[in-house]
Amino acid sequence: MDKTSFSSNEGKPIRCKAAICRKAGEAFVIEDIHVDPPQAYEVRIKILCTSLCHTDLTFWKLDFGPISRFPRILGHEAVGVVESIGENVVGFKLGDVVLPVFHPYCEECKDCKSSKTNWCDRYADDFISNTRRYGMASRFKDTSGEVIHHFLFVSSFSEYTVVDIAHLVKISPEIPVDKAALLSCSVSTGIGAAWKVANVEEGSTVAVFGLGAVGLAVAEGARLRGAAKIIGIDTNPDKFELGKKFGFTDFINPTLCGEKKISEVVKEMTEGGVDYSFECVGLASLLTEAFISTRTGTGKTVMLGMEKHAAPISLGSFDLLKGRNICGSLFGGLKSKLDIPILVDHYLKKELNLDSFITHELNFKEINKAFALLEEGKSLRCILWMDK
Amino acid sequence: MDKTSFSSNEGKPIRCKAAICRKAGEAFVIEDIHVDPPQAYEVRIKILCTSLCHTDLTFWKLDFGPISRFPRILGHEAVGVVESIGENVVGFKLGDVVLPVFHPYCEECKDCKSSKTNWCDRYADDFISNTRRYGMASRFKDTSGEVIHHFLFVSSFSEYTVVDIAHLVKISPEIPVDKAALLSCSVSTGIGAAWKVANVEEGSTVAVFGLGAVGLAVAEGARLRGAAKIIGIDTNPDKFELGKKFGFTDFINPTLCGEKKISEVVKEMTEGGVDYSFECVGLASLLTEAFISTRTGTGKTVMLGMEKHAAPISLGSFDLLKGRNICGSLFGGLKSKLDIPILVDHYLKKELNLDSFITHELNFKEINKAFALLEEGKSLRCILWMDK
Ligand SMILES: [Zn+2]
Ligand SMILES: [Zn+2]
Ligand SMILES: [Zn+2]
Ligand SMILES: [Zn+2]
Repeated sequence: MDKTSFSSNEGKPIRCKAAICRKAGEAFVIEDIHVDPPQAYEVRIKILCTSLCHTDLTFWKLDFGPISRFPRILGHEAVGVVESIGENVVGFKLGDVVLPVFHPYCEECKDCKSSKTNWCDRYADDFISNTRRYGMASRFKDTSGEVIHHFLFVSSFSEYTVVDIAHLVKISPEIPVDKAALLSCSVSTGIGAAWKVANVEEGSTVAVFGLGAVGLAVAEGARLRGAAKIIGIDTNPDKFELGKKFGFTDFINPTLCGEKKISEVVKEMTEGGVDYSFECVGLASLLTEAFISTRTGTGKTVMLGMEKHAAPISLGSFDLLKGRNICGSLFGGLKSKLDIPILVDHYLKKELNLDSFITHELNFKEINKAFALLEEGKSLRCILWMDK
Repeated sequence: MDKTSFSSNEGKPIRCKAAICRKAGEAFVIEDIHVDPPQAYEVRIKILCTSLCHTDLTFWKLDFGPISRFPRILGHEAVGVVESIGENVVGFKLGDVVLPVFHPYCEECKDCKSSKTNWCDRYADDFISNTRRYGMASRFKDTSGEVIHHFLFVSSFSEYTVVDIAHLVKISPEIPVDKAALLSCSVSTGIGAAWKVANVEEGSTVAVFGLGAVGLAVAEGARLRGAAKIIGIDTNPDKFELGKKFGFTDFINPTLCGEKKISEVVKEMTEGGVDYSFECVGLASLLTEAFISTRTGTGKTVMLGMEKHAAPISLGSFDLLKGRNICGSLFGGLKSKLDIPILVDHYLKKELNLDSFITHELNFKEINKAFALLEEGKSLRCILWMDK
């Protein structure tokens, strides 16, 4: 195959635009950068559109510790097209529509080969340090030659980016790219938690704590699995109308529960507790409530939210002893290359609601406006188009 | 069938001997008691032999709160023969060899019908209150007519006792009754935790915290499932020699770990952590160590010990988020009527080591001596024979 028909820059750096953040919390500036050609096991992709999620917001503002790195190109929910490929790349060719994914799947380690987990023993242990094939090496430089840090091995706030194949999934070109971009992170995380991690069963009862994109996606996943009752818990009642589009059947506003704990209200609504509960906020105290909200004997709780203060989780020993189960997961237990194509398929068969997640669309140049919308809670997902 | 050929006391109270404890911690006295005939769904059994476990010790000493009840007939690990049956009893006939089990299995409720749990939605929720068919009603009186409380719906420290069929399992008469008695409680709990709760896989690595009867039984269960490495953790090095009989391959004495945490030593021994860990002591701090001892991505921790101080469990939120799993279970996740016959079968096929649990045998009259042996840590299991 004549690769040059697709790319005239193969083996050479590309000069293009990227949104660079030079200091924590500072406005993004669209600058010219150089993107290196892909090394072995890497692919350079042209981003078609990108979305943004709360993790971008968190890392944009984070101004201390080893994971705070600037200047940086953020962004990790996106869809692109393969522009050039490095040595030893199997399974990708120029022109493929691809989804970069922050959570690795090397396909070769013990865990990647196991059906029990989506953990990648080889790369996943520390997504901030040098456990990857090339450590934390960046393929970006600004016009002065200064290295620009990447983000989560994706960095989608750029016209071009270089991604290790352990972080890349080929998808069907039939799905609209803006819908597909949602599957890079939060939406897959939520759907996967209901599908792969909890394995929600038909006719079961579910409680979801926090109705952001992840929580809404959990409901969508539970709906797809045939859950009979899906209770949404959020202090913002505006979320309830939206929630109905994703399968929620009932809602609890904790600020209206009076003396009662959320778990007590959940138990009253479900004859003793839900089969499955999901914590999508990232608060240890809420996880404790989610845990007690499940029924004795079989109750299963899934932690999805990154605990905001790294606080320890506290569980009642008797509540656990009585047959309850709790686990955590990253990226919804999904093995990216295997499971994202299944979700794409669900969308193409009109079984999966992705459209309702997209509340805003802007041009890439308006990235600062997109961040403001997210921070103010006005957008659920805002798609940034690179070319439109 | 002519039941009278088996029993001349059917429908009538029986006068027999029982070991009564009249006050917390006071010596047991063998007294004459009256045992009522069985009511509907009940069976009266003649105890052949009984063992004792730490739960007997705990309740013997417990002198406060609603679950401290005296005078009482303790005992819950035993084998008996059906002496008479009440109305509506299906599945048991006079002369059957039976095992009473503290953990109920009504066979009819949602959970009993589910393969996901051994919880009994109908009866299991509170084994100290009045959720059973006859509440906390006792079938025992002393010669003065005073009611003697039962214990865990078994009360095996008596020549005869009355047991609800939800607490009774028919077993093969081929198994020696002293070996069978062990399957009433701790040994089944440990084996079941490895087999049914954790579902230990061939070639996997296991850590067991606490080498009492339950911990040794976990190892025995893990060995049966083909675990490659079974690490025992106990501060008493005397347990290590014994532990080898039950499949332990490695040992850690925490008092010899110096500055290192137990979990660090476990991780060094297993390239990053065990696949399964089991807490059999009942200490929240140890459960936290057991949890961190498991590997990221797939690690599963099972809590078996009743937390001694009802202390809450503390887990690191990132340790959980990275794919670890923790659950609790009672009676090793076993559904008594279904699973105990399978364990009996394993014993008869010489696959299961029950013999090594029995370190002492005494006559029932020597019950106080048996309690002293258990309390001083000198016995693993002491069988009390009713007739020998
Ligand atoms: Zn891997
Ligand atoms: Zn994200
Ligand atoms: Zn039941
Ligand atoms: Zn016991």
